Amino acid sequence: MNIVFSDRANRIKASEIRELLKLTTRPEILSFAGGLPAAELFPLEALGKVAKEVMLEEGHVALQYSPTEGFQDLREMIIKQRLHKVGIEANLDEICITSGSQQALDFVGKMFINEGDSVFVESPTYLGALNAFLAYGPHYLEIPLKSDGLDLEVLENMLQNGHKGKFLYTIPDYQNPSGITLSLEKRKQLMALANKYDLIVVEDAPYAELVLTGDQLPPLKSMDPEGRVIYLGTYSKTFTPGLRIGWVVANKTLINKFVQIKQGSDLQTSSLDQRIAARYMKQYHLDDHIDMIKEVYRKRRDVMIETMKKHFHKDITFVESTGGLFTWVCLKEGLDTKKIMEEALAEHVAFVPGVSFFASRDQHHYMRLNYSCMPEDKIKTGMERLAKVLNRYYTE
Amino acid sequence: MNIVFSDRANRIKASEIRELLKLTTRPEILSFAGGLPAAELFPLEALGKVAKEVMLEEGHVALQYSPTEGFQDLREMIIKQRLHKVGIEANLDEICITSGSQQALDFVGKMFINEGDSVFVESPTYLGALNAFLAYGPHYLEIPLKSDGLDLEVLENMLQNGHKGKFLYTIPDYQNPSGITLSLEKRKQLMALANKYDLIVVEDAPYAELVLTGDQLPPLKSMDPEGRVIYLGTYSKTFTPGLRIGWVVANKTLINKFVQIKQGSDLQTSSLDQRIAARYMKQYHLDDHIDMIKEVYRKRRDVMIETMKKHFHKDITFVESTGGLFTWVCLKEGLDTKKIMEEALAEHVAFVPGVSFFASRDQHHYMRLNYSCMPEDKIKTGMERLAKVLNRYYTE
Repeated sequence: MNIVFSDRANRIKASEIRELLKLTTRPEILSFAGGLPAAELFPLEALGKVAKEVMLEEGHVALQYSPTEGFQDLREMIIKQRLHKVGIEANLDEICITSGSQQALDFVGKMFINEGDSVFVESPTYLGALNAFLAYGPHYLEIPLKSDGLDLEVLENMLQNGHKGKFLYTIPDYQNPSGITLSLEKRKQLMALANKYDLIVVEDAPYAELVLTGDQLPPLKSMDPEGRVIYLGTYSKTFTPGLRIGWVVANKTLINKFVQIKQGSDLQTSSLDQRIAARYMKQYHLDDHIDMIKEVYRKRRDVMIETMKKHFHKDITFVESTGGLFTWVCLKEGLDTKKIMEEALAEHVAFVPGVSFFASRDQHHYMRLNYSCMPEDKIKTGMERLAKVLNRYYTE
Repeated sequence: MNIVFSDRANRIKASEIRELLKLTTRPEILSFAGGLPAAELFPLEALGKVAKEVMLEEGHVALQYSPTEGFQDLREMIIKQRLHKVGIEANLDEICITSGSQQALDFVGKMFINEGDSVFVESPTYLGALNAFLAYGPHYLEIPLKSDGLDLEVLENMLQNGHKGKFLYTIPDYQNPSGITLSLEKRKQLMALANKYDLIVVEDAPYAELVLTGDQLPPLKSMDPEGRVIYLGTYSKTFTPGLRIGWVVANKTLINKFVQIKQGSDLQTSSLDQRIAARYMKQYHLDDHIDMIKEVYRKRRDVMIETMKKHFHKDITFVESTGGLFTWVCLKEGLDTKKIMEEALAEHVAFVPGVSFFASRDQHHYMRLNYSCMPEDKIKTGMERLAKVLNRYYTE
């Protein structure tokens, strides 16, 4: 049999990280490669109670087909509890539930990208977004990150020189993979640029509420009177990823198109998951839960940063992230973290080589470390092991 | 702001049925327009128990990220309980869980269709499939349905004349919208044709287990030594659609590509829903549940058919479906069921005009009727109301 895939399907590859993660599951390995929230913090008892109630009290609707745009109560709770709090005002027809933010990323690609269209992305950026868009054949225009976020001079230069991106994809808060946050001043500048050059901005905010140090900065969407920001939120990092609930907030015209795309893509997100999430939000305080998570992550981050400071060679630099799940390590140029990964595995420690996060796959001396799903003592041991491997390259 | 959608997004429209269904929700209207399973038959108590157990006993994994290809236990249960039973033998690497069959349809389009590629579809066929594929810009080659399924002479003629379809999309059992089933003889002929002309067959089987009269026929996938059939199963019609669980069964190369596509599209189907379904299948007998549903649907179908026979003008023909959820009414040519729908709503009864199910939108004298989610007395009343409307056109 002769299988002829579409050009699109031929572009789609397995996530390099997912393949890599399979190597890191041996029990003796301390892996900082994943990006998982801490499973031991999930509110299981509350969710068990809520799940049973949903089944017994509203099961006939919770197990039936439901509207593509999402369960109305859930959308109302998200507007009230999550969006309002960060200065985003949205009406019910400006929000659509998605099956996690990943689905929203796929929809953004489907919605905007004709083959060969340019798209602005951060360099580095979330691999899952690069892969989702890739199906639709974009040309990536990479904007480097500085310590306070996107290099807006580079972006403005490109825009001035007529580079017309269909949108800019950005993770302003505690970025994946770098842990970097876009400063308040730069948020304002970015929105001014977007308005001037009529640029659509896709703001991916999975980590925004995981503030570990300092204040939560206002989302770009809260500075967007023209309605050009597509805001993506999710429960995957603050509540639970297994429920697969995300949300897109955008102007009505765009949401309308998202809903049309979702109809053809999966009809709707799980009715049960949506009702469990909504009921939980009514009966419990998700804010308290998030505060508890932050407390744990803060300690884990601190241990990671302290151990790195203590044991890493002084020429190895890293991002002291102020929130989220990740820190980002920069080795000297010429080193290749993909090769170093083999040595690390031999020392029973794992990370993600940074190269996968660059659209052009041309930066080899970075690595991403995750601190959210590992107890403090193991973080300490893991960083000591990693130091041993890395410092070999800095002996002279 | 200037919004420039992709060509793809411009092709995507809201489902005509979903828009229509909004008109039929007034309480006084007896609507046979939907395609919903009967919510009063959902096994709520069992699922409430199971959901709580999942949360308390395996919550840490049920709420965490999980593998893209699906929860292994669930895939095993489906292989053992659903596939084996109908003569499909599959290994674990030949099945991938999807978020309902609708997602599998989107993936099929994404996987195979380059803009302008031809695709064989039944005429009429499932609107949701037409819409899902449409995003990818196919040229539809329509194969008419006869009372025993696909008109294979037309298909063979097209294949002989060099029409190279990327795949054939078919619903062999109790088709949506027509209720028609592909005969056993024709199943064999179709597979012979597919093998001869190297054609991929997408077998959508959501209704296959809802046998109301006669025997369940073997799926095309069970007659497929060459591995050219992509089989789509789902719980939406036999268990519950709210959980959003479907499965694709295909050869390993194809499943590999499905998994890659799913990674970029939504990472995975809800971990919680998958574990609830798997645990239910272990503790209860889904077969017994399906038998119970069939008993109810059989009576509803009988009442619908009997009332139509009794009250519809003798020149109005309809499919006496032997399973599934639908029957299909054929009026005399020249009549337009979209217009008749307005009169029907005035008489407080609703159906789906058939035109939406034809890729070329050129057949106006059909309508689809659903009998699964309405009690018998209301089916009787509804068909009497409908007869009143339809018979007006047959008075001379």
